[in-house]
Amino acid sequence: MVKRTSLASADCPIARTLDVIGDWWSLLIIRDALLGRRRFGEFQKSLGLAKNILTTRLRTLVDRGLLKMAPASDGSAYQEYVPTPKGRGIFPILVALRQWSEEFDEHPEEIATLLVDRDSGRPVKKLELHASDGRLLGFGDTTLKGRPKSSLRARQPVRRSSTSEGGSNPQRQPR
Amino acid sequence: MVKRTSLASADCPIARTLDVIGDWWSLLIIRDALLGRRRFGEFQKSLGLAKNILTTRLRTLVDRGLLKMAPASDGSAYQEYVPTPKGRGIFPILVALRQWSEEFDEHPEEIATLLVDRDSGRPVKKLELHASDGRLLGFGDTTLKGRPKSSLRARQPVRRSSTSEGGSNPQRQPR
Repeated sequence: MVKRTSLASADCPIARTLDVIGDWWSLLIIRDALLGRRRFGEFQKSLGLAKNILTTRLRTLVDRGLLKMAPASDGSAYQEYVPTPKGRGIFPILVALRQWSEEFDEHPEEIATLLVDRDSGRPVKKLELHASDGRLLGFGDTTLKGRPKSSLRARQPVRRSSTSEGGSNPQRQPR
Repeated sequence: MVKRTSLASADCPIARTLDVIGDWWSLLIIRDALLGRRRFGEFQKSLGLAKNILTTRLRTLVDRGLLKMAPASDGSAYQEYVPTPKGRGIFPILVALRQWSEEFDEHPEEIATLLVDRDSGRPVKKLELHASDGRLLGFGDTTLKGRPKSSLRARQPVRRSSTSEGGSNPQRQPR
């Protein structure tokens, strides 16, 4: 395995989020937790991950505050992994990933599920981005603006003791 | 490097999207392309990736239809990488990743940029998910529903010749 470069030193919030999540598998673990899976065996069955890899991913997600450990809800000796508010905050990312597949997948007929409104049972609409005055915005309607420099700390590489893999050279991310 | 299992056989649209994107670096390449970067050297400078890794990632993104190659806009001999509609469709995923950092980052003062409405220069609102009748939906207001089975093909593992890394065992994704 190749040690993954920490993106935590990046000043781009996209890279920062990716760094906290860790890797694809961690994102799928969070997906499963948001679907109500709680136990090691449930995640393992769903993801087909080797036990040692799953153990590491779960521990990292707990360390980073996306999941918390709790006694089993049925009073048994099992530990459960429960999403925190920070973990539940991943929901829009998962919706965006799902909707890209719904729109661009080459084999949409292979998609097994629909995300529906619990009340009506009807599919949700596509995520919408609005301006502060309510106008609907598309990609071309937005741009990036620098934040006031006074609010930025001196940028020092911040390395986490991440064991996630994913190849790269050990340089930092300039943006 | 560990060969990454293809998630393309998964019937979960989140896993399918992650499989097409490839890895974190590929997502950051798409981010850069959406920010207007076009040339190999620009991506390399931005991402600090080794040339061989960047070459592979760019080629895969072109193969998968997220970027296309075009002659340099200035008439020079350089090739440019231009996002396709499928690549521009990644935008909401990037916005969702950005907004998670804006809400949950432990060091929000390190975030260098704001996503703003081009017209007003004011920050965009948080992505919104609506029901078909327009109601605003949160995580708890949604659920998954199976698609009619008749529209699903027999699920056979579909393997791409992906060279992306990211560890896992070679089992398929049951959802």
